[in-house]
Amino acid sequence: MPAYSTNMRLKFPIVALALEIITIILFAVFAVYDDGKTWHSASHCGSELTSLLTSPVFQDVHVMIFIGFGFLMTFLKRYGFSSVGINLLLAAFGLQWGLLMQGIWHMDHGKIKVNIFKIINADFSTATVLISFGAVLGKTSPVQLLIMTILEITIFSINEHLVASILKANDVGASMIIHAYGAYFGLAVARVLYRPGLRNGHENDGSVYHSDMFAMIGTVFLWMFWPSFNSAIADPGYTQLTAVINTYLSLAACVLSAYAISSLVEHKGKLDMVHIQNATLAGGVAVGTCADMNIEPFGAMLIGLLAGVISTLGFKYLTPMLASNLGIQDTCGVHNLHGMPGILGGLAGVVAAAMGKKKNATASMQAAALASSIGFALVGGAITGLIMKLPIWGQPPDQNCFDDSIYWEVPQEEEENEGSLVHADHSKNKAEA
Amino acid sequence: MPAYSTNMRLKFPIVALALEIITIILFAVFAVYDDGKTWHSASHCGSELTSLLTSPVFQDVHVMIFIGFGFLMTFLKRYGFSSVGINLLLAAFGLQWGLLMQGIWHMDHGKIKVNIFKIINADFSTATVLISFGAVLGKTSPVQLLIMTILEITIFSINEHLVASILKANDVGASMIIHAYGAYFGLAVARVLYRPGLRNGHENDGSVYHSDMFAMIGTVFLWMFWPSFNSAIADPGYTQLTAVINTYLSLAACVLSAYAISSLVEHKGKLDMVHIQNATLAGGVAVGTCADMNIEPFGAMLIGLLAGVISTLGFKYLTPMLASNLGIQDTCGVHNLHGMPGILGGLAGVVAAAMGKKKNATASMQAAALASSIGFALVGGAITGLIMKLPIWGQPPDQNCFDDSIYWEVPQEEEENEGSLVHADHSKNKAEA
Amino acid sequence: MPAYSTNMRLKFPIVALALEIITIILFAVFAVYDDGKTWHSASHCGSELTSLLTSPVFQDVHVMIFIGFGFLMTFLKRYGFSSVGINLLLAAFGLQWGLLMQGIWHMDHGKIKVNIFKIINADFSTATVLISFGAVLGKTSPVQLLIMTILEITIFSINEHLVASILKANDVGASMIIHAYGAYFGLAVARVLYRPGLRNGHENDGSVYHSDMFAMIGTVFLWMFWPSFNSAIADPGYTQLTAVINTYLSLAACVLSAYAISSLVEHKGKLDMVHIQNATLAGGVAVGTCADMNIEPFGAMLIGLLAGVISTLGFKYLTPMLASNLGIQDTCGVHNLHGMPGILGGLAGVVAAAMGKKKNATASMQAAALASSIGFALVGGAITGLIMKLPIWGQPPDQNCFDDSIYWEVPQEEEENEGSLVHADHSKNKAEA
Repeated sequence: MPAYSTNMRLKFPIVALALEIITIILFAVFAVYDDGKTWHSASHCGSELTSLLTSPVFQDVHVMIFIGFGFLMTFLKRYGFSSVGINLLLAAFGLQWGLLMQGIWHMDHGKIKVNIFKIINADFSTATVLISFGAVLGKTSPVQLLIMTILEITIFSINEHLVASILKANDVGASMIIHAYGAYFGLAVARVLYRPGLRNGHENDGSVYHSDMFAMIGTVFLWMFWPSFNSAIADPGYTQLTAVINTYLSLAACVLSAYAISSLVEHKGKLDMVHIQNATLAGGVAVGTCADMNIEPFGAMLIGLLAGVISTLGFKYLTPMLASNLGIQDTCGVHNLHGMPGILGGLAGVVAAAMGKKKNATASMQAAALASSIGFALVGGAITGLIMKLPIWGQPPDQNCFDDSIYWEVPQEEEENEGSLVHADHSKNKAEA
Repeated sequence: MPAYSTNMRLKFPIVALALEIITIILFAVFAVYDDGKTWHSASHCGSELTSLLTSPVFQDVHVMIFIGFGFLMTFLKRYGFSSVGINLLLAAFGLQWGLLMQGIWHMDHGKIKVNIFKIINADFSTATVLISFGAVLGKTSPVQLLIMTILEITIFSINEHLVASILKANDVGASMIIHAYGAYFGLAVARVLYRPGLRNGHENDGSVYHSDMFAMIGTVFLWMFWPSFNSAIADPGYTQLTAVINTYLSLAACVLSAYAISSLVEHKGKLDMVHIQNATLAGGVAVGTCADMNIEPFGAMLIGLLAGVISTLGFKYLTPMLASNLGIQDTCGVHNLHGMPGILGGLAGVVAAAMGKKKNATASMQAAALASSIGFALVGGAITGLIMKLPIWGQPPDQNCFDDSIYWEVPQEEEENEGSLVHADHSKNKAEA
Repeated sequence: MPAYSTNMRLKFPIVALALEIITIILFAVFAVYDDGKTWHSASHCGSELTSLLTSPVFQDVHVMIFIGFGFLMTFLKRYGFSSVGINLLLAAFGLQWGLLMQGIWHMDHGKIKVNIFKIINADFSTATVLISFGAVLGKTSPVQLLIMTILEITIFSINEHLVASILKANDVGASMIIHAYGAYFGLAVARVLYRPGLRNGHENDGSVYHSDMFAMIGTVFLWMFWPSFNSAIADPGYTQLTAVINTYLSLAACVLSAYAISSLVEHKGKLDMVHIQNATLAGGVAVGTCADMNIEPFGAMLIGLLAGVISTLGFKYLTPMLASNLGIQDTCGVHNLHGMPGILGGLAGVVAAAMGKKKNATASMQAAALASSIGFALVGGAITGLIMKLPIWGQPPDQNCFDDSIYWEVPQEEEENEGSLVHADHSKNKAEA
């Protein structure tokens, strides 16, 4: 390995503070509170109600972003601080940046009017980054990830504008513009950052009992609040209710198929935590695009059932192949949770539109939206990966991948003996040599 | 022990997929979205608001079912994967089955119209199964538990219909139809599945420090959202507010009495985590039936205070007696958290009805509802237990009870030495011998 | 050490039950359900909506109190049971006591009318105690802490009444009346309870890997729901939305500065979990007083940025100085999370009022409110500390500080060898000697 410096002492504070100060200046110039003159008229009951009504959905999405994604990635045995901590960092910066990037497409007299819907959408934009983070988890520095955040959200907002305003495609639960986009963006970055030294695995690239338990906190919160995610920007009333019900049922069916296939493909019929933590969520991804369409409850359940099967099989068979044959090292298997189910969701939307399940939706525009999302992801991810690959951002050497102690002060473990309190320090030494 | 096969490779996937496919077919035949023609009229503000308004309560109940019940049971040292994972499996299947079973009593032109209230009630129906799961935790296979789920929810929906529509009894927070029913159903199953080999305990039937911490996640989420549980189906407005306040105050009073009694009965006045994790919730159970009645704030607090005392004493003295004298091995002590407090709640409802605290409620119908709930539970549980006892469902041998590694791939622990990475494999070998 | 008895067997149950029974009697005399005659008129849509609308905010605040504060304090390696368990005890008692103490200032025909706003405010009042708990964490007995709860909430309600009704100052997010008050009250108590024996640290006054992960659950839930905290009692509509947006943005900016400064001041640029767990929240505290003012989004972000810097530097440099020079041993560093950011919030309110950012707010009344809050805190905390210092409340000897096993039955650890299952018992012996 080249002797990269992983010391973040100046690089990271300068990058983080500079980005924040630039962002604050942009907010000072462009951002104002929404005075509600536009959105009041949509409500029967006046502004007081509208702003309050939306807030539970906002909080549900917020929980998915910060607890859901953050804890889902804590399954690695020595990477919990980074998983939940860097998730917080990226999402906190990303939501500010997303507010700006999405806002510039909807300016009003040169101003971005901030309201509840805008901050829900800002949270959404960060989800793309957190998905991509899963693909490169354990192999990137905080500075690299902040760079990824800026670029991925900027490109996301272009694709989102194209899909929603130009193509006028439906993607209420964002199977295409968030999940497929985030997954393929991350896989492109992972491909560019390919590490031959990790070809034969890494001792820290795995879970322990308690880290799997922490990850289940993330899984279950994502699973529970996915109906809010898929319905957050749906038209209030019947349409929104449809999105809630479809997502609720798709996820429920997906759990059964994920468990069944996990048992079927594993040693002696045992369940595998990786599948349970991830594939049970594929139903939420896959029903996203047509969540607000009249696909009927059983239609949603079929999508969920299929998503659970595809996702579990992907973890078992496809991820190892991608790593060994294509050089795509996908730490969290985002291809199985977000990539393939996202494409499935996009295709389901094409079929549903062709069957007339949603007024004004056309199959061709749906297909174009899917192609656009994957295209922007692959090209954007590759370019971003090349920038991240510059050897100045403090990326970890192979032997220190998947180890918090390279970027965090890590306490010594209680189970270690007095005489052997050297593990954490030892790994520090490796990193700083 | 007979040489049961605990290999789930074919049994579990076949059962799980078959159940899910049958369920999807039934949904295709019977389930449609509620077009709101009925429930719109109840609202002052139109359909948009009604569907949104209900959703925070739905999400609170959802959190109780999946995080609350799931993590509450993770206190066992080697059974966390099963507790939270099988909880997810049973609830995901149960909510679909519950939607069907509850729906057939309220068909409209031969269709079950799915809406927010129906999915809240579907979540409720799964709570009965999760309570019973606590009684047999660690001693049953996933296939056995899926069978229990079908039967318990089917019988629940009959009793619920009887109590609500025939007897017209009040049970807004479901002390009787969920808590007492779920507890006595589970105890009946546990009695039928009695394992003499566990008479002297089992080394894995206990907690470790971190597993107790995970369980507190479940406890606190249940505790916090119980006001939503008890008010979810109350009439909006004053009645619902009453249910929230009564539950909030009953739970608060219950914490004080549970802590006090725990300290009083334990070695040197120390607090016992089993009591704190469970008995602090008994106030929510016990105030359920009369949560929406005018029992006054201090009445709710008295119920909570008493529930905390009864529940803690039950854990300390009654559970060991039930195990040694009656052959009822109640892993989580559901008799103390749901059984006795559920009966207390039912009796409180009888008294409150007799005192005229709720319009149209009569003491005799309340008493009949309590008797019906316990009767259905005991008979239904006994029959279900006999079916579950058939030696073909992959139940674990005694020595592998309370151990995830019999049904799960369990990672090796970080604290184990390189030379002794045999613990998990060793326990696997025992199970598969 | 004097031979204190730490045996809680009679003291704790008697105190806890006596307090609860007195509280129930007071509720029986004074508390009734709010019949809504007052608050209905405020709503456009009738009572049904109003009571429902408020409940998601109530639940968010509830989560912050019980999960947020509870888990935030679980970072200590051997003090997780106490952190989350005693947090539950104090908050459960505190909310009942707070309902009474706040209610007596707003009686209606001699009755306290309980409604959603009153129970949100009751939750708020407990936050002061939980902040102070952080300052004395690990060094106090449950009985001492119950005494602190009564006195602190009683004094809080006087100061709150003074600030809100006499001074008519603005403090929507309670930077002054909760955060600064709670912090300086706790620091005054900690000063009075100064333990010279802990001058050189304590082996249990630190974290382990998993305890830091549990603490992050608290951090992230506090971080996510802070917009609800700061907007819970804001006027519905535009004002409430402003409070949500300001808090959301202040917290996001605060994350960036807390991470940057943590890296800047730590060994080799590494991040320190103590800073991440705490300083990322300072933006929520500091923006509290002017959350509902027209400070513009960038103004909120500047406040958050500054709070993150001050808080992180406080943890690094000020806390050790306070301990060594002033005898203030602040276990959780509440001075950095609640104290200084609370003062910053109060001062920001003075400036914003002077700039006319809030109708009817005056700089002088804002300044008086800040001074009053700190004054009541310091005097009230000192008196409370003196009462807590009486050697009859079962406080732990120095060597048993920061150790659950003195007040809890603690399970033996899985990683310990069969032959050495003596650790927990050993520490018990120390405590009881």
